[in-house]
Amino acid sequence: MLFRVEMTVNLPASMTRAEASDIKQRERDYSHRLQREGKWRHLWRIVGSYANISIFDVRDAEELHELLSALPLYSYMQINVQALCRHPSSVYDDDR
Amino acid sequence: MLFRVEMTVNLPASMTRAEASDIKQRERDYSHRLQREGKWRHLWRIVGSYANISIFDVRDAEELHELLSALPLYSYMQINVQALCRHPSSVYDDDR
Amino acid sequence: MLFRVEMTVNLPASMTRAEASDIKQRERDYSHRLQREGKWRHLWRIVGSYANISIFDVRDAEELHELLSALPLYSYMQINVQALCRHPSSVYDDDR
Amino acid sequence: MLFRVEMTVNLPASMTRAEASDIKQRERDYSHRLQREGKWRHLWRIVGSYANISIFDVRDAEELHELLSALPLYSYMQINVQALCRHPSSVYDDDR
Amino acid sequence: MLFRVEMTVNLPASMTRAEASDIKQRERDYSHRLQREGKWRHLWRIVGSYANISIFDVRDAEELHELLSALPLYSYMQINVQALCRHPSSVYDDDR
Amino acid sequence: MLFRVEMTVNLPASMTRAEASDIKQRERDYSHRLQREGKWRHLWRIVGSYANISIFDVRDAEELHELLSALPLYSYMQINVQALCRHPSSVYDDDR
Amino acid sequence: MLFRVEMTVNLPASMTRAEASDIKQRERDYSHRLQREGKWRHLWRIVGSYANISIFDVRDAEELHELLSALPLYSYMQINVQALCRHPSSVYDDDR
Amino acid sequence: MLFRVEMTVNLPASMTRAEASDIKQRERDYSHRLQREGKWRHLWRIVGSYANISIFDVRDAEELHELLSALPLYSYMQINVQALCRHPSSVYDDDR
Amino acid sequence: MLFRVEMTVNLPASMTRAEASDIKQRERDYSHRLQREGKWRHLWRIVGSYANISIFDVRDAEELHELLSALPLYSYMQINVQALCRHPSSVYDDDR
Amino acid sequence: MLFRVEMTVNLPASMTRAEASDIKQRERDYSHRLQREGKWRHLWRIVGSYANISIFDVRDAEELHELLSALPLYSYMQINVQALCRHPSSVYDDDR
Repeated sequence: MLFRVEMTVNLPASMTRAEASDIKQRERDYSHRLQREGKWRHLWRIVGSYANISIFDVRDAEELHELLSALPLYSYMQINVQALCRHPSSVYDDDR
Repeated sequence: MLFRVEMTVNLPASMTRAEASDIKQRERDYSHRLQREGKWRHLWRIVGSYANISIFDVRDAEELHELLSALPLYSYMQINVQALCRHPSSVYDDDR
Repeated sequence: MLFRVEMTVNLPASMTRAEASDIKQRERDYSHRLQREGKWRHLWRIVGSYANISIFDVRDAEELHELLSALPLYSYMQINVQALCRHPSSVYDDDR
Repeated sequence: MLFRVEMTVNLPASMTRAEASDIKQRERDYSHRLQREGKWRHLWRIVGSYANISIFDVRDAEELHELLSALPLYSYMQINVQALCRHPSSVYDDDR
Repeated sequence: MLFRVEMTVNLPASMTRAEASDIKQRERDYSHRLQREGKWRHLWRIVGSYANISIFDVRDAEELHELLSALPLYSYMQINVQALCRHPSSVYDDDR
Repeated sequence: MLFRVEMTVNLPASMTRAEASDIKQRERDYSHRLQREGKWRHLWRIVGSYANISIFDVRDAEELHELLSALPLYSYMQINVQALCRHPSSVYDDDR
Repeated sequence: MLFRVEMTVNLPASMTRAEASDIKQRERDYSHRLQREGKWRHLWRIVGSYANISIFDVRDAEELHELLSALPLYSYMQINVQALCRHPSSVYDDDR
Repeated sequence: MLFRVEMTVNLPASMTRAEASDIKQRERDYSHRLQREGKWRHLWRIVGSYANISIFDVRDAEELHELLSALPLYSYMQINVQALCRHPSSVYDDDR
Repeated sequence: MLFRVEMTVNLPASMTRAEASDIKQRERDYSHRLQREGKWRHLWRIVGSYANISIFDVRDAEELHELLSALPLYSYMQINVQALCRHPSSVYDDDR
Repeated sequence: MLFRVEMTVNLPASMTRAEASDIKQRERDYSHRLQREGKWRHLWRIVGSYANISIFDVRDAEELHELLSALPLYSYMQINVQALCRHPSSVYDDDR
């Protein structure tokens, strides 16, 4: 099942450069793993913002929440989720 | 170049059932053609709404506007466009 | 899978009293059927508004969209959908 | 009487991990108690957010405010309350 | 139980002067009756708007919805409802 | 002259429990005095929020601003003011 | 007592040119009269909009509502009112 | 040329009482000077808020920005600017 | 003096194709004239919308309002105006 | 390809005057370079705000994001980006 997810990151001013670098590296590793597993199907940067638009392909909302709440940056993100379904005019097999 | 496009349709109450049926058929045909040409890369239905979220892959904003303004339903849509770019953590070759 | 759905109805001024009465009756019948099938799990009126808050229990977003778009009042509603999941502090077996 | 309540939690950055763990445990205990007493009738997690949607069944607004303002996390929450009433199409006895 | 209710009226352009005059008279009569019965406790005009702020004193949300949905102008109003409760600093006996 | 006033309190995280307790006590005393003088005509708690809805009866906007800006919690409040006037359908002598 | 008033005009499409011309003339006459009487103290056009920002000097909210609701264009306006008072740094005698 | 300017002040919690007192005094002096020079034509307090509505009369936007950015409180203000022009119904010579 | 102007067009459904074609032609001619006179300095289409972003270079707000209110499409537009001034980091002579 | 970019700066209260002075100087130098290279085509100050409206002329969204994210003030800015295209009524060769 597909979800559009929009994440906006706000790192606290008190976070040191080393902490920020470490947490971003762990975020990247985690994101790579979910992408390779086929759960995080698309990932785009919003131009000019520390934010992304993503498409997740998961079993259900339960699994999506588990994956999102395990993001290393989870506490520093505002996340917006929207359930998607197949569009009757879509010709793509994987847009569902 | 990639754009996220969100289209919400509002057909006027005065449109007859036949007119609506005809314009939706032309919209579907046009959409199929753009999808086959690779310009309309993704197309999802927003659950519970006469609306979609799409990803367009076009040469530039000029081409996007030409494609969108030629939509049969263009006069009855509210369209929101957001420029995307490659996310540094994306592992996908076609997310750009 | 659970969804919170909020529906607000706006009947067009041009609809006759008989048409309104008929479509509301069909809406009620359809709603009763979905409730008896266990798909429409809760249905509350928002005080002072021609609107409701509902909980749907469906297979996935695909099924939810099918059910909602078949509502007799669908063309006259603004619908807002939010995916829910189990809360770790919930003691209820059916809140999932 | 039924109320839809939406709670969004924002823990201050200055709160230690131990303090957070303690207050969350007390919140869970308190929530369990209200659920067992039948006052907190439903409790769902909003996907991707440190937030919930709940249904409370209380004598009146006075009792609801007492229950909410006694939540251990009360000072760290934004709470939105909406009065509900029975929907004429509802078939459920307890949706009131 | 007390509720703050805000009503904003939008009469359709197609309503004749006679129809408007008639419906307003019925609205006034109905309002007078509810005020005399002690259900509609306060009623103020918002300066410069065809709108009011009211305080209702009713048994519960069920009764409030019955009273509001029977307003002659109900179909032409946008209504916003907020549950109130006693303020710990209030010295008034009837502010509850 | 009547005003609807809505006050929402945000105490800074740095305020100690003793300071909070002291300022709230002074707020209560001040509020009691204004209520007894007939200037602060109504005071209700908004359910689930550290906020109130009030009705002030003052000579003019000048006096209202003097009273509000002397509130002990004034620096920690967001205040919204709306001028009211007599509603033609009101039967109450003191709703003006 | 001073109020900032913002009026935005929306003439219905069905109004004929002659009707519009007539109602605007009556609006202008009425406005001139209130200005000469010192009640409508300032009147500015918002650039690029069929809207104005005004300062009214009236006895109280009651009088303001009487003056505004007698505007020939009243039914076609959205009006926003804000109570003003003397600023402690103002050097002007008539800014109160 | 006339501008409506709305300023809302937010002093940081870390500012000492002496600093606040000093900066407010300098703000007042600066404001008095601009009023005497005829640049700051009106200055009203918004009731219940640490905010004002002002009318500036300046050569152009360049001069307005110079005057505003030199306000002692400038770093602590949110400022909203709107260009005004003469209203065709105004009878006042200085409302332009 | 420079202004950013944003115009969004909404043609009424009742306008015939011939009327629309005629008014758009007059709009284009008028726009060309203002551009050649150097008053309408920039004109861009917002992608996917019947809207534009423009930069006007005029004597003052008075002249801007005259030019905008003479647009053939003026009655069918929502117009938003923002005063600009020279940015201290700009290297361009005509960005003022 | 053209983009309208709006940047609003919020320097943290903890930044020293020397740090602020240094980062602003680097911002200015960087801005000058991009303007001389023809990438940052226009730069205006929004009157009364620490904010600007800019027009960028870049190869695509990828290049725009690289340029913006390299701004010395990038971490302290809220940035809003809108893709532009040629307006059919524009007479300017460089408005594309």
